Order: sequence, then structure tokens, then C-alpha cells
Amino acid sequence: MNKRKLVVIGGDAAGMTAASKIRREQPEREIVVFERGNHTSYAACGMPYYIGGLIDSEENLIVRKPEVFRKKQHIDVRIRHEVTEIDTVKKRVKVRNIDKNMDFWETWDDLLIATGASPVVPQSENIDAPGIFSLSTLQSGINVNNFINENKPAKAVIVGGGYIGIEMAEALLARSIEVTIIDMAPQLMTSLDKDMSDQILAYLKEQQVKIFLEETLEKFTKNADGSVNSVITNKQTLPADIVIVGVGIKPNAGLAANAGIKIGKNGAIHINKRCETSALNIWAAGDCAESFHLITHEQVHIALGTVASKHGLTAGINISGGNMEFPGVMGTAITKFKEMEISRTGLSEKEAKNLNIDFETAMITTVSPASYYPDAKEISVKLVINKQSRRILGGQIVGFEGTGKRIDSIVTAITAGFTAQQLMDLDLAYAPPFSNVWDPVQIAARRLL
Amino acid sequence: MNKRKLVVIGGDAAGMTAASKIRREQPEREIVVFERGNHTSYAACGMPYYIGGLIDSEENLIVRKPEVFRKKQHIDVRIRHEVTEIDTVKKRVKVRNIDKNMDFWETWDDLLIATGASPVVPQSENIDAPGIFSLSTLQSGINVNNFINENKPAKAVIVGGGYIGIEMAEALLARSIEVTIIDMAPQLMTSLDKDMSDQILAYLKEQQVKIFLEETLEKFTKNADGSVNSVITNKQTLPADIVIVGVGIKPNAGLAANAGIKIGKNGAIHINKRCETSALNIWAAGDCAESFHLITHEQVHIALGTVASKHGLTAGINISGGNMEFPGVMGTAITKFKEMEISRTGLSEKEAKNLNIDFETAMITTVSPASYYPDAKEISVKLVINKQSRRILGGQIVGFEGTGKRIDSIVTAITAGFTAQQLMDLDLAYAPPFSNVWDPVQIAARRLL
Repeated sequence: MNKRKLVVIGGDAAGMTAASKIRREQPEREIVVFERGNHTSYAACGMPYYIGGLIDSEENLIVRKPEVFRKKQHIDVRIRHEVTEIDTVKKRVKVRNIDKNMDFWETWDDLLIATGASPVVPQSENIDAPGIFSLSTLQSGINVNNFINENKPAKAVIVGGGYIGIEMAEALLARSIEVTIIDMAPQLMTSLDKDMSDQILAYLKEQQVKIFLEETLEKFTKNADGSVNSVITNKQTLPADIVIVGVGIKPNAGLAANAGIKIGKNGAIHINKRCETSALNIWAAGDCAESFHLITHEQVHIALGTVASKHGLTAGINISGGNMEFPGVMGTAITKFKEMEISRTGLSEKEAKNLNIDFETAMITTVSPASYYPDAKEISVKLVINKQSRRILGGQIVGFEGTGKRIDSIVTAITAGFTAQQLMDLDLAYAPPFSNVWDPVQIAARRLL
Repeated sequence: MNKRKLVVIGGDAAGMTAASKIRREQPEREIVVFERGNHTSYAACGMPYYIGGLIDSEENLIVRKPEVFRKKQHIDVRIRHEVTEIDTVKKRVKVRNIDKNMDFWETWDDLLIATGASPVVPQSENIDAPGIFSLSTLQSGINVNNFINENKPAKAVIVGGGYIGIEMAEALLARSIEVTIIDMAPQLMTSLDKDMSDQILAYLKEQQVKIFLEETLEKFTKNADGSVNSVITNKQTLPADIVIVGVGIKPNAGLAANAGIKIGKNGAIHINKRCETSALNIWAAGDCAESFHLITHEQVHIALGTVASKHGLTAGINISGGNMEFPGVMGTAITKFKEMEISRTGLSEKEAKNLNIDFETAMITTVSPASYYPDAKEISVKLVINKQSRRILGGQIVGFEGTGKRIDSIVTAITAGFTAQQLMDLDLAYAPPFSNVWDPVQIAARRLL
């Protein structure tokens, strides 16, 4: 019977996945979780759909509540408790009970840091004005939703045209709000190459989203009541009743850094494949920690639910005495904007160039389902391969309903080390309601032969 | 300049893919194609959707017409010309000009047999009654469509609950016809295991399709005008204004067999990976020929558009002096019935059992998209793995919109020789509109760890 006391900092995906796994493996062990927010285990990725009105209540986004963890799994979850210091020598953490405004020390034998990530907040004038939001915790999503319900904003400006930006554009349009996106880059969705991203741009414009690229946020102006009035860029003034800032996220690694735990050059807590940090008996998992990139073989920071869950499982298995290595990431991501589905994996052309890889690309546009089938719509597939080995390095898909998840066959092919020829040779599924005889992914591969 | 004369028997997917490829590689070569039917290069798989009214005109199913092959590609396509004999010694074929009711001999240096497959037609009494159809050529689809337009049938009986059966059930329902399916097997869709197939059965019943399993066709009765009146099974009499018989297909290998060309034990023309038959300078491709199965390493007969296209490409490259090996099949197939999507690849549990493989299976039911997302619907995934090596042998998916093509990641994983663990470790794409954090395919894999 393992009597080692485990403390987990952070009660969302990574932390609670680990805690739950450990509870299953070690029913008698003491597990304490400190979560500074109001909620545990929630689907943060679902927030835009909740704000957009597709999901009735924030309750639906909560996978498991603190009281359920306590009663059903005997995990001592304490919300509104913020860990403010890690003492690696005395093996204890300093905890602030936010409601009681009181600090105390809690000891541990094993410590799991799962502090997540926070949105990057530009230090622009009036950034704190009511009506300006970033999305991070569930509470932040609830705040946006409440603001819309109470203030019925007519015009929104979204700063940043990445995943959060386009998902929030869909959400705000669904709430009958006029949407303008500004981005300092020359394209939306910079994790895709510009040739692919341009199709997203065209579709968003078609759907009445105003977009200003290569435009920089300078500051905000306020109304008499203090709420946001406009966004001032380096080129113009955009009236705004609500502003969403989605310009990136940074790992919450300060607590670990202050304790002398090694931080990677990407700013996230350095962990090995077992999710162990540089400090004995201290583990890290989820958005606060690094991941191993399967293609570049570098440590990267990728804050996604899939990674957090796998990190959590890895840490949980290892903390409870098992042995699991985190399998690594390749930067797979998917999203949608209205009917358009967008996915990517591996290296983009841009990334391959930056890594000085000798590469080749193919980008094709065809239709899915079969050309003669009703509602056949354009789908573009881009592949990046190593010029010498012909192995696939990355893929990008921009299509419509039912096409985005086709990135998974490219993910699998890359993981297997397949060449373009091997991708083309696959016995993929075909029927007219899905595609033409040659799957779009294979048409792209064929272009590279 | 290659002056060898090529004769192709059969002007559909395999034959015309090969002929087109050869034309591109060898612009000066003489290419003659004999097609006994009225059409070339058509999308046979699209016929149920045409009959169901989703596709306006049969013209939309035709990829390329004979006159286009003649004018644009200088391929001498002759429709309504049936090859009735292959003379391997004098290197010639005997051809019947159907309209002129006249026979002639045509010589060749290379011969490609692409004669396709035909539906199995039970030798039941009155099988030739008007109103009883099988689907094979485009003309057969046009005939069904015309019959429905002219006779407005109220009740249909479909004999056979396989791919054609359920696709035609959807089509006939869309034409406001009451549909009854009979099948002698204890389940629909025998290429899937019963546990998966039972979900298809339940959905079809929910959609008002009457289904009678373990019931055998005995004969048909006719109306006074000779048209079909009812289907008599071993258990009952089912009134029928139209009958679709879809109980399997057989390769059109008689022409080759009569010429002494080797036929496989599955009844299809034996070919090697280069699509060469046992006779010198004679090739075969498409539904009339065998394929190499990547998992069982046996020669199998799989009549699908994907195989025909790849056979055609392989034969075309090799006939024009190149070198390509057919990459093999693993029995991947996909279809849909209304909103339900059904796909499979590799070995089913049943097949693994028959092959005396020591296997293990997992079948899970979850939802897609994410559980809190609107319209989250059940999806079931079944995996079959080798018990010792843990390698994946097969997969089956029964779900709703956007789930069927997820079989492709299983196809790719099997091709790569992945274990269940490797499948679970993949960095697959996740966002709430598509699935929960763990993709259904990975949840199934996890069950096997």
C-alpha cells in the first residue's frame, strides 16, 4: 500500500486525469488537489460553442465537479486555493485559501504541477476596460457569455486570427454580432501556410467577417462608463462593444521556475518523456509543460487538450509506480469555422524552411464528396515531404463538412515514416458520399511522385 | 516509338484508366477498346444516389464519353462491341458488333482484359419478370430509374442486405417506396461482425425498413401483365412492385478461362502484382481480376472502384514499359444509410476466426462530436488485433455524419503494422465539433491495452 502523499497543483484536464488514474491504481493513497479557480475538469475547448449558444449551459462543459471527485474518488479537491510557492527542500507547497485570504503549508511526497497556461495579454492602454476578454478558464468563458447577455454588443473586434480568433468569430456571428478580426501577420491561422490560409480568409470574408491583416493593436479607448469603446490599430480606429484578445498563450511556469525547476527555452516546464521535471519527485503535465516533437525531435510547447490528457495519463501511471512514456506530438490541430473544416499536422512549408530541411510540397484542390454528388465542395490538401527520403513531414487540409478529420490518415502515415508513394498506395475507404475514387489525400500524394 | 497495338476489353474504370495512362506515356501507340455496353468510364457506385434522386441525370455519372476518348485521346473506343473469344496463339480477339450482329477478328500485341463483374442472379422461378433488377452497368441503373418513373411502385423488396441492399434501401425510401429487405444470413452487412451489424439493423428498422433475416428467396410470382407481383421466401409471401436483387457479384472471367488463362480459386482472373495474367502479353485489371490481400497474403476478389482504378493504373504503367506493383488491398469499404455511416477494413472477428488467428477484440460505443456538443451521436468502433503481437488486424466503424472516413487512420495503422498501443499513441486531431479528447478509434485501442 502506497502511503506517499500526492499533491496536484491545478484541477483541470492534466491534473485530474493523473489524479483519477492514480486513484484507480492506488485506492488508499492520499491525493490533494489545489485549484485556484472555481471549476475542475472542464472542456475549455468547448467555450466558443457555449458562447455561440450551441451549448445551453456552462454546466455541460464540466466533465466532473469537485464534490464528485471528493465523494466518488476520495480525491481531496480544493477549489479557490492557489499554490503560491513550491518548497523542494522541505517538500511542501504554500497555499492561499482565496476566500479566507489565508496562507498555509501543505506537505507532499510527490508533487504534480499542472498549472496550465494563460493567454498572452498585450500591455496596451486600457486593456483592463470592461468588455475586453481573453479566453482561458471556464470562468473567463462564463464572463464573456454574461457580458453578451447583459450588454447585447453590436460590434466585436477580435485581436488575433488564430484558432481562438476564428472559433470566436463563429460564436459571435451566431450571437448576431458584427465581427472584425485584426492580425499583425499577413495571413490568418499562421500554423498553416499562406496558400492554404488564403482559402480560410476568403471564406470568412464571404461569411461577413471583416479582416485586417498586417495591422497592429495599439490601444483601446473607453466609454464614459469605463467600458471599451474602440480598438486603435496602427492604421485605423475600429468601434468595438466587445473585444476578444487571442494572440497566443504562455505556460504557467513561474511557480516552477521560482522553485528552481528547469524551464525549457520555449518557456514551459522541462519534462522528460515520463513527465518528470528536473526536481526529484516533482512531475509536470499539461499546458504548463513541454512536449517532445516527433518530427523535429525538439522540446516544444503545445497547449492542447489531447496533449494534456496524454500527459496526465503518463504522469498518473508513472506516479503510481507504472511505466509510461509520453508518445510525443506532431502539432496536429483541427478547427472549424461554420461549414469550413481546417486541420494540420507535422511541419508546414514555413516550418520546414525554418528548419533548413530540403523539402518539396504539393497542394491540390479537388472536391468531396464525389464530384457528381450533391453538395460536392472544394477541399484543398497540402503535403510537405522530405525531398530526399520522400517521407511525409506534414499535411494541411481546408475543406468542408466531413473532411477535417481526414488529417488523421496523414498523422498516422507520418508516424509510420511513410513516403508519399506509401500514402498513395493505402487502401483508403471510398464511396461517392465521401469522395472520389482517389481520396483527396492520395491525390496530393500522387502529385509528389 | 512503341508501335505495339493494344486491345482493351471493357471500357469502364480499370480499362479506361489503363488506356488513358498508356496514351499519356505513348502518344503514338494504337489503342482499341471494345465495350459491350452503351457507356464508358462511369461511376457505377453512384447509381443508388442517381436512382434515389440525389443526382439529376445519368449523364453526371459518366466521367468520360466514348467520343471524348476518341477525339481528345485518340483512343479507338467502340461501344456495343462484345469480345466473345480470345485467341492467345494468333494474338487476336473475336468481336461481335452488337448492332450489326456481325463478328470480326481484331489482332493485338498486348491485350488487357477488364471485363468487370456481374451480379449473381439466383435461378429462381420468374427471375426474368419485369420489375426485378440487379445493379451492374450504368444501363441497369437507368433501367431501374425508368421503371420507377413509369410504374410508380409502392412496395419494394430487396433481396440481400449488403452494400447494394442498404444503399438501394435509402434510394427507394427517398422515392417514397416502402422497403423490405430479406437476407438469408442472420445479420445485415456480413462484412462486419454481428455486434456491429446489429446497430445498422436497429437504425434501418427505426427508419421504417422492414427486415427479415435468415429468410431464403424461393421464387417470384407475376401479375397478369407478366410483371413481378410478389417475392416468396421460405417463410412468407411479400408483395412487391419492384425487386432489387443484390446477393453478390462474380468476376467476368469466362472469356479468359476459355482462352486457357489461369483463374484463381476465387473465380477471378489470376494476376501477379504487375497485373500480368498467366498468358504472355495478356494483362487483367479491375473487377474481373484478383488482388493481393495485405493481411492474409492471399489472392482475393474484391470488386471496388478503388481497386479497379489502382489496377488500371498499374496495368497502364506496366503496359507502357514502366514498372509498378499493385500495392494490395485490405478489404476497406465504406457506405452510408441516410445519416448512418458504416466502414470497415482488414479482418473482422469472423474472418480472423476462420483463419485460425489467435486474436482479441474490443468494441466500444462513445459519441461524436464531443458529448456536450449539439447532435452528439453514438459511434461504435471495433478493433481486431493479433493476441500475441498486439498488431491491429482490422477495424469497423458504425456512426453518424463525419465518422465513417475515420476508418482511414485504422487502414494506415494496419498498413504500418501498428499495435493497439501505437494507435492509441497517435497525435490525432481533436476539437469539440469532431470528437472528445480521445478519438473513438483511440478509445477502442485503449480498451486493448
